[in-house]
Amino acid sequence: MLDIRTELTTNPKEKPAVDELGFGHYFTDHMFIVEYTEGKGWHDAKITQYQPIPMYPSSMVFHYGQSVFEGLKAYKTVDGEVLLFRPDRNFARLNKSNERLVIPAIDEEFALEALKQLVSIDRDWVPNALGTSLYIRPFIIATEANLGVHPSKNYKFIIIMSPSGSYYKGGINPVKIMVEQQFVRAVKGGTGEAKTGGNYASALKGQEIAEKEGYAQTLWLDGKENKYVEEVGSMNIFFKINGTVITPELNGSILAGITRDSMIQVLKSKNVPVEERRISINEIVEASHNGTLEEVFGTGTAAVISPVGELKYLDEKLIINDGKIGEVSQMLYDTLTGIQNGTIEDTFGWTIKL
Amino acid sequence: MLDIRTELTTNPKEKPAVDELGFGHYFTDHMFIVEYTEGKGWHDAKITQYQPIPMYPSSMVFHYGQSVFEGLKAYKTVDGEVLLFRPDRNFARLNKSNERLVIPAIDEEFALEALKQLVSIDRDWVPNALGTSLYIRPFIIATEANLGVHPSKNYKFIIIMSPSGSYYKGGINPVKIMVEQQFVRAVKGGTGEAKTGGNYASALKGQEIAEKEGYAQTLWLDGKENKYVEEVGSMNIFFKINGTVITPELNGSILAGITRDSMIQVLKSKNVPVEERRISINEIVEASHNGTLEEVFGTGTAAVISPVGELKYLDEKLIINDGKIGEVSQMLYDTLTGIQNGTIEDTFGWTIKL
Repeated sequence: MLDIRTELTTNPKEKPAVDELGFGHYFTDHMFIVEYTEGKGWHDAKITQYQPIPMYPSSMVFHYGQSVFEGLKAYKTVDGEVLLFRPDRNFARLNKSNERLVIPAIDEEFALEALKQLVSIDRDWVPNALGTSLYIRPFIIATEANLGVHPSKNYKFIIIMSPSGSYYKGGINPVKIMVEQQFVRAVKGGTGEAKTGGNYASALKGQEIAEKEGYAQTLWLDGKENKYVEEVGSMNIFFKINGTVITPELNGSILAGITRDSMIQVLKSKNVPVEERRISINEIVEASHNGTLEEVFGTGTAAVISPVGELKYLDEKLIINDGKIGEVSQMLYDTLTGIQNGTIEDTFGWTIKL
Repeated sequence: MLDIRTELTTNPKEKPAVDELGFGHYFTDHMFIVEYTEGKGWHDAKITQYQPIPMYPSSMVFHYGQSVFEGLKAYKTVDGEVLLFRPDRNFARLNKSNERLVIPAIDEEFALEALKQLVSIDRDWVPNALGTSLYIRPFIIATEANLGVHPSKNYKFIIIMSPSGSYYKGGINPVKIMVEQQFVRAVKGGTGEAKTGGNYASALKGQEIAEKEGYAQTLWLDGKENKYVEEVGSMNIFFKINGTVITPELNGSILAGITRDSMIQVLKSKNVPVEERRISINEIVEASHNGTLEEVFGTGTAAVISPVGELKYLDEKLIINDGKIGEVSQMLYDTLTGIQNGTIEDTFGWTIKL
């Protein structure tokens, strides 16, 4: 395993007040960085001060979008312990994304070791107020200074960390989402399954239009038939219809969310029927019409659960559960955040104590 | 119009030998850069030394791929003049890409003025050997240091320039291309029409597979039905069938190539029948079988024309024009490069003299 050189900052920053944290705005004192050179592999791993990195304007990531990333969180328990939630899954998925984007694989065990060292060094940056966490962003960018269209010969794998405020300051409020008709996020054979910048850049336009119409997010349909549900915003989506929880199956254009997987496991453990299958927007409209659409919610690292109170499709607005959070959504939220905060026993073996 | 501050380098680089140029590897002494800040617009335009720029690791372009670019060339004529080829079209297309990627528009006239100043300053970097040129890369990247998924509040618009060797050192050799079956470059409603990094990142995997099988490029079919021809590698594609030249119509998932448009205009001026329409891979296979598939060629800024000598589809290999460059392909190549080098009169008004 590579050695990690540690250069601690001599000039630590002041920590922001907990109610000013927001998301992704402040960064901790340190970052992890390791370089890749073709023929040499990954080398020169270090933990160093969080700071700007000099990049040639010809760096390939600026031009051809060869980049992948991950998102996970560290939580401080009521006892002051720091827990990581399923970090091994993030590094496994990073390598799946690497494969699609023709980026060399990372050593997953080494990445986890680097992450643990980094979080330990910036342990004081993990906020402990209810609902807060330390958001962790591992990412890889193509850094070869060359304009030829080919896989880069150089990369940087970096981990940065951002203390993050409570997603639900005033309680969990269901959001309104709009089914996107004009734009497409991903298609089978594309990069939808990978966590890569292009998917997010592509989604900005639909998001902008939804927001202008007063909707928080877009619900993406499949790119081929414009018929089957894929994801909502940057979350996976679940529907509770007549007692059964249904989520789109992983078909190659949907991100294999780690929160998604955790929710499915929690549902099974509570004996709630759950199905991963193709689900059309028409089935959802029908369920709404005949009164069996009981709950809709998105899942992701940032919000854990984001209940949907209204779904706009074409000219129709479907109101779900009177615009309130549903029982199963609430149960899932409580269970997962309880495990993450250490107030509920982790019978799944998901958390890693630092 | 914004003022452009000029800070000339005091340390000009040695110019590489013309036969070592290659593509996109060497850069001239200077670059143009202008900043965007939400609420303030574009500001602080300058021409300065080509050098690394400091970027926060949280810069949005590294994570969410919000970037667009252009590619064009400056040519040195036999008389020592420097010509730009249709640069106005590039900046118009850049703004179309900006619209799709939710990036603020640039002032096209100002961009052209900045480009002219930059090329004038580095005029000695325009190589003059046959087939060489100065490749120009305008691009915009999202620079807000924030991990929230939303359009960036800050951008940099940069122009860098790279002296570029002859694409066809040993004469024009037709390439072998493979019809891609597994991966998809773009789909209607996606970003295929925009010149943005994600399209190129997405294409690397198919390219890698094609190269392993001995093919230079992939031919992309549409993402919905996997049936209609879209582009080849990062070029537009043309087929000459029974005397008529056919190229896929601009359908929203194909890049509106400037070389493509120029070729169509040249063909019309020479009274060669030309059609922009949907064309299926089956029609091409059939034309090959019945002996009417006369020529196939890609068009783009880098190669101008890239004749295709072999097309692999499923298990079949179609040989085109005995693997040699066709008459129309050669005529188009000679005409366009003649106009670009100033040896043929530019009756189209495409070139701008510096």
